[in-house]
Amino acid sequence: MRSGIKVFAPASVSNVACGFDLLGFALEQPGDEIIARISDKPGISISKITGAKNKLPFDPRKNTAGVAAQKLLDFLGETGIGIEIELHKKMPIGSGLGSSAASAVAAVVAVNELLKHPLEKRALLPFAAAAEEISSGAIHLDNVAPSLIGGMVLVHKGHHADAFRLPTPKGLHAAVVCPEVEILTKDARQMLHPFIPLEKHIEQSGYLASLIVGLYQSDLALIAKSLQDVIIESQRAPLIPFFYEVKEAAIKHGALGCSISGSGPSIFALCANSHIAGQCSEAMARIYRDAKMEHLLYLSPINQEGAVKC
Amino acid sequence: MRSGIKVFAPASVSNVACGFDLLGFALEQPGDEIIARISDKPGISISKITGAKNKLPFDPRKNTAGVAAQKLLDFLGETGIGIEIELHKKMPIGSGLGSSAASAVAAVVAVNELLKHPLEKRALLPFAAAAEEISSGAIHLDNVAPSLIGGMVLVHKGHHADAFRLPTPKGLHAAVVCPEVEILTKDARQMLHPFIPLEKHIEQSGYLASLIVGLYQSDLALIAKSLQDVIIESQRAPLIPFFYEVKEAAIKHGALGCSISGSGPSIFALCANSHIAGQCSEAMARIYRDAKMEHLLYLSPINQEGAVKC
Repeated sequence: MRSGIKVFAPASVSNVACGFDLLGFALEQPGDEIIARISDKPGISISKITGAKNKLPFDPRKNTAGVAAQKLLDFLGETGIGIEIELHKKMPIGSGLGSSAASAVAAVVAVNELLKHPLEKRALLPFAAAAEEISSGAIHLDNVAPSLIGGMVLVHKGHHADAFRLPTPKGLHAAVVCPEVEILTKDARQMLHPFIPLEKHIEQSGYLASLIVGLYQSDLALIAKSLQDVIIESQRAPLIPFFYEVKEAAIKHGALGCSISGSGPSIFALCANSHIAGQCSEAMARIYRDAKMEHLLYLSPINQEGAVKC
Repeated sequence: MRSGIKVFAPASVSNVACGFDLLGFALEQPGDEIIARISDKPGISISKITGAKNKLPFDPRKNTAGVAAQKLLDFLGETGIGIEIELHKKMPIGSGLGSSAASAVAAVVAVNELLKHPLEKRALLPFAAAAEEISSGAIHLDNVAPSLIGGMVLVHKGHHADAFRLPTPKGLHAAVVCPEVEILTKDARQMLHPFIPLEKHIEQSGYLASLIVGLYQSDLALIAKSLQDVIIESQRAPLIPFFYEVKEAAIKHGALGCSISGSGPSIFALCANSHIAGQCSEAMARIYRDAKMEHLLYLSPINQEGAVKC
């Protein structure tokens, strides 16, 4: 078998309380691995999928990794080439951690590497983003961009899919707990009220604005005051068992803020350092352990690299 | 007559396109002057008002300057003292340039000086803000805070009336044109739809977020892309004669962005330097001149000092 290129693309926490559809950050773990190699069969083919519990299609036109890879090939005019992809899903699906974004990102980075790096990493964003649209019915740059370039990222569709890396205070860690309840992003989106009170808009965009100030100033107290969601969280919380208990436990144990990751059911807590994040994750997990509910637990600094060849 | 303390408090541009109720910046001119001196008559009295065309009340309980001064005296426990205030209004009223905020700010700064500076300047914010509530029916920190401390300021009621100074690129200038149409802030507020589409919230808060990134990075192109208002501007524009013509003229002459100042009718254009601002102000004013409509014109860098003793 021909040797391939192996790429890891990380999971990501999107929305980040006040930044619905606009803000996301990458985790160091979990994430997806993709191995891509040249194949004799023209076009993209998916030869192997592991870790997905048969939930992901092998048809490359229906799999975000396949779609992303094909979009990139189309752009590069590489219509004759054959590329075979293995997808090793090492993170839960439908968990609110940007699973499909990680697949799409890993695929475009792997294909770009395989083709001897014709594009800069950042230039791969639109191809991964377009593929994401298939899985969620909307472009989720706030997962795709952090998974690709790492860090805490502000995205904006109005700016032609621009992504802006924001500074993060040293030591910032996330504790993430994911109860075993699947929520489809499409459903979680459709349940949202299409209108919001003007006053809530002012309040929430003020929190987003002051969060960005807090990140630029490394002001942990301001970050903590700003990690609020007065629009989305209360609408989606009913989908997540024990959400408010978990949030309360995180805040009580010193988290700067705690809210739903993406469309859930994962819950993230941002913490000033690894020690506090450890205590928070323990307290958050205990709620599910006591309720005898299956759950996954992740503890991670902000991933500053994004997708990497490995 | 006893010698008094004279204070200048500048006019301010609030909302700044994407920052409705959250963002404002101070101008160097115009503004209000207040002279405060100790009087034998206990409490606050207003002895003189100039430049207000009889539109402002002498009753200190109904005049923002009087209310602000009284709030400060109450807080300091100075109930026996008598203070006489002269208000020299050197800016238009009901123009969207924070006229009542400037009066309130000048009053608290003058009284604080007269009492030998018991409070830091920043600590005067709540007293001026509370007084502002009388004139507009809502606390307008986005005028009060820039007029007091200067600069481009992010405010947030959810943070207990916090105000955050944002960096601004060197050279940033504003051109402001104010057609002679009076708009009462209360009316301009009541005409706004109380609900907005969620998608508009995402778009607008994304612009606010990227404007803040642009200010921190001194990225003029990003500032220009971010100075958008997809919620308020179109609702209030009909109150302002030739708004869209003026905006088009400003953008055509190189402004980074152009929108309504506060609740109007003033229109501001933010520009990369004084040269461009001069060209924009000329082009903006020409619209009203051609229509034979009275108007005022201001050209100013961002005022970095706020209210000052003079």
